[in-house]
Amino acid sequence: MSGISHSNTHLIHYYECDQQQNLTLPMLVNLLLHVSGEHSEELGLSDDVLAGRDLSWVIIQYEMHIKRLPQFKETIKIETIARQYNKLFSYRDFFVKDEQGNTIIEVCVTFGLISLSKRKLVRLPENIMEPYGAEFSKSLVRTPRPQKVDIDKAQKRSYHVRYFDIDRNKHVNNSKYLEWTLDALDADFLNQHQLTYATMKFEKEVLYDEKVESLASMEKIDEQFYVTNHHIKSGEQINFTASYNWKAKGE
Amino acid sequence: MSGISHSNTHLIHYYECDQQQNLTLPMLVNLLLHVSGEHSEELGLSDDVLAGRDLSWVIIQYEMHIKRLPQFKETIKIETIARQYNKLFSYRDFFVKDEQGNTIIEVCVTFGLISLSKRKLVRLPENIMEPYGAEFSKSLVRTPRPQKVDIDKAQKRSYHVRYFDIDRNKHVNNSKYLEWTLDALDADFLNQHQLTYATMKFEKEVLYDEKVESLASMEKIDEQFYVTNHHIKSGEQINFTASYNWKAKGE
Repeated sequence: MSGISHSNTHLIHYYECDQQQNLTLPMLVNLLLHVSGEHSEELGLSDDVLAGRDLSWVIIQYEMHIKRLPQFKETIKIETIARQYNKLFSYRDFFVKDEQGNTIIEVCVTFGLISLSKRKLVRLPENIMEPYGAEFSKSLVRTPRPQKVDIDKAQKRSYHVRYFDIDRNKHVNNSKYLEWTLDALDADFLNQHQLTYATMKFEKEVLYDEKVESLASMEKIDEQFYVTNHHIKSGEQINFTASYNWKAKGE
Repeated sequence: MSGISHSNTHLIHYYECDQQQNLTLPMLVNLLLHVSGEHSEELGLSDDVLAGRDLSWVIIQYEMHIKRLPQFKETIKIETIARQYNKLFSYRDFFVKDEQGNTIIEVCVTFGLISLSKRKLVRLPENIMEPYGAEFSKSLVRTPRPQKVDIDKAQKRSYHVRYFDIDRNKHVNNSKYLEWTLDALDADFLNQHQLTYATMKFEKEVLYDEKVESLASMEKIDEQFYVTNHHIKSGEQINFTASYNWKAKGE
């Protein structure tokens, strides 16, 4: 594996956890992106430096393999590496390890770079990718597309974008889409199941004061396993799609 | 001042900030309560230990004096001390300091202790207060009551309690009430003004799936200064009240 890695440790605080004291998925992505932000800063490629060149990273896709989510008071280690890039996309891996050094979560993120003035994807400049030691390869890394929501059976919940949903990029922070997808599921289901796999795709940004709908349909594989499929929509526009795999929690 | 103090430092992460890169008020209270939680744990009085005695701390009031909110990438020091207690209430102070040692925020929190099975305030046991070195005094510390909302002029926004709003106490986390109050104000107002003082009172807990309304009225003192008054209501029940003082941000 090419690339220069960066890592940091983090003690899980109570407000980063759900009612069962597990780290929440929205907070997981916040923590991951904090560590990749540190990595970029260390290499002299902070968001401010990029903004000075009219550039900003955007997240296109997440793919996650989750053995378990860390719990309140655990100290985790987050390692990240910019693995590979092509003309338009950069692929960054994250490994979350517990105190014994076991990898409990693996995440691959597909990033794109936009022109801030044009709000459009641009070609990745070599002098931005080179410091990470990322390997150039023409090939695309295929992240499985989320499956379609079964509209007839979907549960729906509506959200009105809040002031604190907006981040310094002036659009809804990526972690909020994850919160909206999960919140459309029943609390009992969330309490009794754990997420084992997720694939997500960002289609179009959501802005302040917009209204979105979170649609979720569920497929039962057997007594233990479920798949849920999710859309976040504003009107007819699909903003975000996701598919999650779940298994029943042990006693 | 009596009491044994505890402190910790914290680096402000981007996801703890608003779109202007200042620490959000909801995240400020999360950080404060993390440090007081550490303090209790250090003294052998963690929430788990208390739960084993059918007890849990609840927040009754916050009073805050804010010179400025820290910014993204700043490292702050949070100091806390259990200052004083009486039959029913414990008063804890927090001091947030910047890297130069200047106190930028002072917060006084009034805590009560409830019986978990009865959901009712109980008398503070001496053997729970004594380890903190807090002074017993019969006198009540008066925290100014929030002013009433001017209903005729109030702005309103509705919220449906989400799965991730609920903490391990199975009710809405205290930081969410603050988010709801602020979110009812205009984004332009929030962007152009900074909070200088807050007094808040928790009246009745809100539970999962409940619907609440956030009402906010504004009083202009002069071109630079405003007071906003807030109610969080579920039906006719007032759950939370707050008054905030604001001043126009400098250039």
